[in-house]
Amino acid sequence: MPLAVVRPENREHLVELLRWADAERMPVTGRARATNQVGSAVPVHGGVVVSLLRMNAILDIDDRDFVAVLQPGVVTADLQAACARQKLFYPPDPASVKTSTVGGNIATCAGGLRAVKYGVTRDWVLGLEAVLPGGRVLNMGGRSHKDVVGLDLKRLFVGSNGKLGLISEVTVKLIPLPEAAASVLVGFADLASCMDGAMAVFHAGLLPSACEFMDETVLSVVRLSGDIPVAPEAKGALLFKLDGTQEGVDAEVRRLVAALKTVRPVSVEVGVGAAEEAIWDVRRGISPGSYKLKPNKVSEDLSVPRSQVLRLVESAQELGRTHGLPVLCYGHLGDGNIHTNIMHDASVQGEVETAHVIKEALFRLALELGGTISGEHGTGLSKASFVGEQLSADEMQLMADIKAVFDPNSIMNPGKGW
Amino acid sequence: MPLAVVRPENREHLVELLRWADAERMPVTGRARATNQVGSAVPVHGGVVVSLLRMNAILDIDDRDFVAVLQPGVVTADLQAACARQKLFYPPDPASVKTSTVGGNIATCAGGLRAVKYGVTRDWVLGLEAVLPGGRVLNMGGRSHKDVVGLDLKRLFVGSNGKLGLISEVTVKLIPLPEAAASVLVGFADLASCMDGAMAVFHAGLLPSACEFMDETVLSVVRLSGDIPVAPEAKGALLFKLDGTQEGVDAEVRRLVAALKTVRPVSVEVGVGAAEEAIWDVRRGISPGSYKLKPNKVSEDLSVPRSQVLRLVESAQELGRTHGLPVLCYGHLGDGNIHTNIMHDASVQGEVETAHVIKEALFRLALELGGTISGEHGTGLSKASFVGEQLSADEMQLMADIKAVFDPNSIMNPGKGW
Repeated sequence: MPLAVVRPENREHLVELLRWADAERMPVTGRARATNQVGSAVPVHGGVVVSLLRMNAILDIDDRDFVAVLQPGVVTADLQAACARQKLFYPPDPASVKTSTVGGNIATCAGGLRAVKYGVTRDWVLGLEAVLPGGRVLNMGGRSHKDVVGLDLKRLFVGSNGKLGLISEVTVKLIPLPEAAASVLVGFADLASCMDGAMAVFHAGLLPSACEFMDETVLSVVRLSGDIPVAPEAKGALLFKLDGTQEGVDAEVRRLVAALKTVRPVSVEVGVGAAEEAIWDVRRGISPGSYKLKPNKVSEDLSVPRSQVLRLVESAQELGRTHGLPVLCYGHLGDGNIHTNIMHDASVQGEVETAHVIKEALFRLALELGGTISGEHGTGLSKASFVGEQLSADEMQLMADIKAVFDPNSIMNPGKGW
Repeated sequence: MPLAVVRPENREHLVELLRWADAERMPVTGRARATNQVGSAVPVHGGVVVSLLRMNAILDIDDRDFVAVLQPGVVTADLQAACARQKLFYPPDPASVKTSTVGGNIATCAGGLRAVKYGVTRDWVLGLEAVLPGGRVLNMGGRSHKDVVGLDLKRLFVGSNGKLGLISEVTVKLIPLPEAAASVLVGFADLASCMDGAMAVFHAGLLPSACEFMDETVLSVVRLSGDIPVAPEAKGALLFKLDGTQEGVDAEVRRLVAALKTVRPVSVEVGVGAAEEAIWDVRRGISPGSYKLKPNKVSEDLSVPRSQVLRLVESAQELGRTHGLPVLCYGHLGDGNIHTNIMHDASVQGEVETAHVIKEALFRLALELGGTISGEHGTGLSKASFVGEQLSADEMQLMADIKAVFDPNSIMNPGKGW
């Protein structure tokens, strides 16, 4: 429970707040919609919570500069919709897009479904205004699409989880809205051919805007709510999205289906328009469906080199079997970024502990495979104690020293892993 | 003249060198092919120059992980060619691609022709190994395409111009090689319709992989070496490149040509295969051709919001006329990143000074227009004294303090703007 919640309406409020908080050595935890999965917005040291939800104006969407300027509290889907009305496109697309904010996405460097083609939030930030402890206002970057003067402070802020300062204004890069899209949902007889299917698509020269994976348990969970367009015998599925001009998308769909033939899928469903939405309902059904197995989950976001996803998923499934808990594996195969949901029932003695045993084994496996304990969510509270297994002591010291440059009294979001 | 030049062959050599240099407070200036335009690789404080050209091995190109691992001294075009043999694509494409190195491109965050679609060097760096003053080895990131654990130190290194440490190994992201490309060279009756032409293409939903601009003086310079496929009356030209599947590229070329009709181009030349190379000879002819006007140039790389390019170019031309020196304007219109070459003859009294008067007026104009004094080259020596006009005192202090975290004795590339 914090001492207070502040809801500033503008930069000046933030300046006044952070001048006072720094003088008083008052912990400050920024917060927008708080959809973060690892507790980054939880004020563990009390102090003041700063809700940025009143700073939610889209200030400019410019179809000549191809930039949008906005306050941090704008919901990402609202920005995307406003851009789409001008035939402009802001690609970052975290699963939380309808509820999370652009400021929160920047604080966490949110990834999401389209990263395989379009990159993550970091890659779209051109300018940031931030207020630092003590009340200094930093204007970093701006509307220029290229800028190499000095260290790239604005992108250091991206993913810094509110530990350097609070973002008060954002300038992001836009591109033309692709006119067409199509999706293809493909079922495979086994996990290995599922992975080979993804490789076949990339090796056919295609770069889909999404390349999502679902394992057998995930498919069974989605089926609890009704029939899905994947063959019943499938032990894994891939969901591709392609975007571009109409002719380009048509050609890419043909290429993709042809490329997959070599790995003998058990079902191939092409969706365009309303049928495309129906295909994506399968993906959207995962999270609600998962709770039909068990009421609680430990949800992780490991990322490994793309070739190692098979080993990660096989090991996760094996750990689930060994420990008697269902483990769902799905997510952004194109980035090697797999969500593992360890389902359990917290009211059953020992299940919470078992879920965490599985989680820790998966963390160590991801690191052994050359991966990371977090591809998207950050480390915040719940992974804080594992950061030292991924980062070297030198890296952690450098990060702490850099933080001290911005926040010498360590008031910004204390008590978090990063 | 430095005290010594060192040519290390491996990380251990760098460790030994930087341990010694830090203890001795010896200035260290990293250097690869030294194609940098602003003197970033010039050892102004003497000390030791470290050539990284012996560390030029491509260690791995992995068509499953879609990464390449290499030493910093690999020439960028060599990496691209090695990737292309495996149907993989490393998009960053600075004009110096055949002579500059990946390590140098990372040190400067090189941009180039394809940034409008694919971003700059920063966006492709997944992992960096660097040696810091004192000999500490940092391993930042790796083969994971997504990673949000801690501050993004590796991308802080990108564009840091050798002022934090020396890069000893690089991991970059790759994508599938596009199978087809085509280019379109378009002449316009005046500058305004040239800019409108670029907007028309973006507003048609197209994202070309290059969108290059050439002004009237540039066209006249290239014509000195022979006929070019641009109408003689053109006062400006655009050169677009489109890439993707064959069907996609065919469709995009049709869309592009149709979109341009609204702005009435005076010539449209579509090039595929050998004809595409001929079109790009126009662009490649600019630099050699420019020296037929005057033997010396001041070459800049201003970047402004895309809508402000017309004002920047008109002002540059006007400044040239007023001061009696030819000013060539060309470059990456898609990024708002325009190269201005102020041609002069250093043996004629006053021309060097006049060229610098024009340059400084352009710097101030770019900043007034919301742009930057450097979109690609950095500030190094030649723009060091102008950094304070773009960055605030707070930003400069933060950058200096961050540098001190890595390099407390300030031995790394001293005497540079950034």
